[in-house]
Amino acid sequence: MTISKTPKESFTIMNELVLPNDTNALGNMFGGRLLQWMDVVAAICAQKHSNSNVVTASVDGVSFKEAIHLGNVVTLEAYVSRAFSSSMEIYIKVYAHNIPRGEKYLCNDAYYTFVAIDSRSKAVSVPATIPETEEEINKFEGALRRRQVRLVMAGKMKPEDASELKALFVVD
Amino acid sequence: MTISKTPKESFTIMNELVLPNDTNALGNMFGGRLLQWMDVVAAICAQKHSNSNVVTASVDGVSFKEAIHLGNVVTLEAYVSRAFSSSMEIYIKVYAHNIPRGEKYLCNDAYYTFVAIDSRSKAVSVPATIPETEEEINKFEGALRRRQVRLVMAGKMKPEDASELKALFVVD
Amino acid sequence: MTISKTPKESFTIMNELVLPNDTNALGNMFGGRLLQWMDVVAAICAQKHSNSNVVTASVDGVSFKEAIHLGNVVTLEAYVSRAFSSSMEIYIKVYAHNIPRGEKYLCNDAYYTFVAIDSRSKAVSVPATIPETEEEINKFEGALRRRQVRLVMAGKMKPEDASELKALFVVD
Amino acid sequence: MTISKTPKESFTIMNELVLPNDTNALGNMFGGRLLQWMDVVAAICAQKHSNSNVVTASVDGVSFKEAIHLGNVVTLEAYVSRAFSSSMEIYIKVYAHNIPRGEKYLCNDAYYTFVAIDSRSKAVSVPATIPETEEEINKFEGALRRRQVRLVMAGKMKPEDASELKALFVVD
Amino acid sequence: MTISKTPKESFTIMNELVLPNDTNALGNMFGGRLLQWMDVVAAICAQKHSNSNVVTASVDGVSFKEAIHLGNVVTLEAYVSRAFSSSMEIYIKVYAHNIPRGEKYLCNDAYYTFVAIDSRSKAVSVPATIPETEEEINKFEGALRRRQVRLVMAGKMKPEDASELKALFVVD
Amino acid sequence: MTISKTPKESFTIMNELVLPNDTNALGNMFGGRLLQWMDVVAAICAQKHSNSNVVTASVDGVSFKEAIHLGNVVTLEAYVSRAFSSSMEIYIKVYAHNIPRGEKYLCNDAYYTFVAIDSRSKAVSVPATIPETEEEINKFEGALRRRQVRLVMAGKMKPEDASELKALFVVD
Repeated sequence: MTISKTPKESFTIMNELVLPNDTNALGNMFGGRLLQWMDVVAAICAQKHSNSNVVTASVDGVSFKEAIHLGNVVTLEAYVSRAFSSSMEIYIKVYAHNIPRGEKYLCNDAYYTFVAIDSRSKAVSVPATIPETEEEINKFEGALRRRQVRLVMAGKMKPEDASELKALFVVD
Repeated sequence: MTISKTPKESFTIMNELVLPNDTNALGNMFGGRLLQWMDVVAAICAQKHSNSNVVTASVDGVSFKEAIHLGNVVTLEAYVSRAFSSSMEIYIKVYAHNIPRGEKYLCNDAYYTFVAIDSRSKAVSVPATIPETEEEINKFEGALRRRQVRLVMAGKMKPEDASELKALFVVD
Repeated sequence: MTISKTPKESFTIMNELVLPNDTNALGNMFGGRLLQWMDVVAAICAQKHSNSNVVTASVDGVSFKEAIHLGNVVTLEAYVSRAFSSSMEIYIKVYAHNIPRGEKYLCNDAYYTFVAIDSRSKAVSVPATIPETEEEINKFEGALRRRQVRLVMAGKMKPEDASELKALFVVD
Repeated sequence: MTISKTPKESFTIMNELVLPNDTNALGNMFGGRLLQWMDVVAAICAQKHSNSNVVTASVDGVSFKEAIHLGNVVTLEAYVSRAFSSSMEIYIKVYAHNIPRGEKYLCNDAYYTFVAIDSRSKAVSVPATIPETEEEINKFEGALRRRQVRLVMAGKMKPEDASELKALFVVD
Repeated sequence: MTISKTPKESFTIMNELVLPNDTNALGNMFGGRLLQWMDVVAAICAQKHSNSNVVTASVDGVSFKEAIHLGNVVTLEAYVSRAFSSSMEIYIKVYAHNIPRGEKYLCNDAYYTFVAIDSRSKAVSVPATIPETEEEINKFEGALRRRQVRLVMAGKMKPEDASELKALFVVD
Repeated sequence: MTISKTPKESFTIMNELVLPNDTNALGNMFGGRLLQWMDVVAAICAQKHSNSNVVTASVDGVSFKEAIHLGNVVTLEAYVSRAFSSSMEIYIKVYAHNIPRGEKYLCNDAYYTFVAIDSRSKAVSVPATIPETEEEINKFEGALRRRQVRLVMAGKMKPEDASELKALFVVD
């Protein structure tokens, strides 16, 4: 197995068209449909990083900033921000374009965590990640903090053991 | 407008069948499809609480505990755990059943936040929530903490202002 | 195998959202789409009663009373009204809600018959049904009459042998 | 408006392929999916007869005789068996083919009733039907009886007024 | 195996309804959706001619002449225009109907080529075609020319070997 | 309007996962589904080049070289190979990946032609194309020949007027 990979190696782009069934009564895209597209792009990205089958483990920090409209082209960009033994945090950015009007804006970002599995659904190790750009380094460092939040909020880690997180609150 | 509602008043059940297209190469349900079903049940639930149109604002703490299989019946149960002026946190539990085998287990839970909007997509006020059962009271109280996590992680609140959250870490 | 079950034990609820592809040029829901949703809720209900796999055997008495509109929440409620050796008649009621307007009305009801099968598609016995409420008793009693109508209309029973049905017409 | 039409003028054929999502765990086609295809072919057929928009009014006598399998070609044939002022009874036959094996069999038939409507959803008159073949004459004559069954079972007609139906049971 | 078949023996009709998700922002049907419907009707047609499984080999000469609108009934008609050892050229005509307005027009035609395969995906021979009507004879004769165009354009045949095609250009 | 654009400016990538419903009885992807995906990526690409709405005008030279399997990731890459007043030829390459096995191969390529339209469906002018790489120059030059083939085969141009094409056959 490769020992480590850069986020560039797992970088994945997906383009989709917003069709009537993807929208609500006001003509805006449903959040649920976008959650599904993000899961697909993240799964392909996690496959590229791990060269194995993968399953979604958790979803966090999905915030819907701007409405996406019927007929828009939606571009999803994803890369593995940090790997932890058999799990990978994938950072996803979502852009909406109204091409005829020349408009393009960031409407959403999210963190999906996937686990690499073998053919009997058993977790397998994945390469480490080596961030290169400023954004990648930033996401790599924040990943530990986000992981502790997930574990503390799910009751799987005691607050006092979440050292990265604790440091945010306890300034002495 | 009604001043307040109980979680029971927004309680919503959805039953779905896992079809081939909902599954991956190992015959297990895709996370992304479940994220979409949870969005639908949460949207109906948020409509019931607010009696208005609603949009997804954020998704957090979705953890996939157990695999769901082809042919399973999936039951989603949702209620508004806490309302904040125009937004509502919805708590969702997901069960998978293999009815011929008599198996049923909790496979997933999640927190979705929706905002109530009027016909011009402007946020409108929603009733407060009055929890009744022990679980509802528990979710009501935790909602404040989860909200501060969302705001801190999204960079919209300073850690030192997240009083509920800070109390978890700073024990003096 | 359980000897008998109440309709309450097989009671199943499904909530769905009417999307653009479910509607015709006038913005009303297609009958065919609703027939499919009713088949799913009835199948889950028949599985619950029989604890086995099931297949649709016949559909009768589906009457579309009121139009359902784009954006409506549709609630389907189903229970086994009567079991006959390996077959089950399921009674389904369908409500449409326009939640922002506070409207809810019964738009449809129907009788679906399912047969319980084993893994080689052979019919297997199912528990008897013990109706409890007035509506359940009413549906239980009418089930024999509806069954005779199905058999007579399909040319599988002679009119003179349909005793329940005959009694409706021959009053002496 | 045309005063009358033959069943041949509304005759409609539809061919479909059974895909994985149309099937259950045993690889057989779901009843619900076929109910939807029958609704589409019947709607096109009713449009041809009435030259207007149409809505499903009721569904009866759908009996699933033989299982349909994954990969089968399904052929649906429909014609208006009888028109009553603004409503039309459509008779549908469904065949399954396994073309590589040279197998073809009738697996299903059904009666759908549609109502012709104008652009404000108001019922409009439709041409009468003039049956030509033996099967068409047979279906034309039975339509009155099936209509009385529908009305009696739905509680909209008293048994003693269902003259056609009564004649089946009362032989003196 | 049958030595030869007429186009009438493989003739296949498909009727579909144009739903919202099949249309773009201007309410006209997407080309891609029609390409998929044509592939299905052509596959059924090729199965009928060869009595075997089939796969799409190439698509050519699809020209979109007239827009198809939301709510239209689309009729696809296909027959095998010419067979070459294991491949079949299928000629498809597509009509759009606005039945309430009494409009019907040809909006599209296309040539799809399929290959007959056995259960190990190996190509198998198919019956020859014997055209009967004037249109069928015309399509049968043109098939050789279209085949040479495909091969020359794909770089699989030298222009000087495309005798049929060459004759079009070299008039001496 | 921009006077000219490079193929790089319209370059569009789409990644999709092959699901059960996209496959036939042998577990290989249907041609028709891929034709639809190619139409979507080509439409987005044509929108980028023209900054306007677009409609499919014709499809040619689609050849299915290699089978694509269930679970594969499919990558579609498209760019405008040449513009002609209001129409654009888009060249599409399709790759299939089995990521866990580390396999990736070209399985398909095609030429789609789109027309740019305004809000009243009237054709509008598009920028010229300036090819840069060797492949782009090659596709740019061949576009004229492919266009003449389309016109000659559709009977819209006389063979003797197809100068580019004629040159292929008439070598003196």
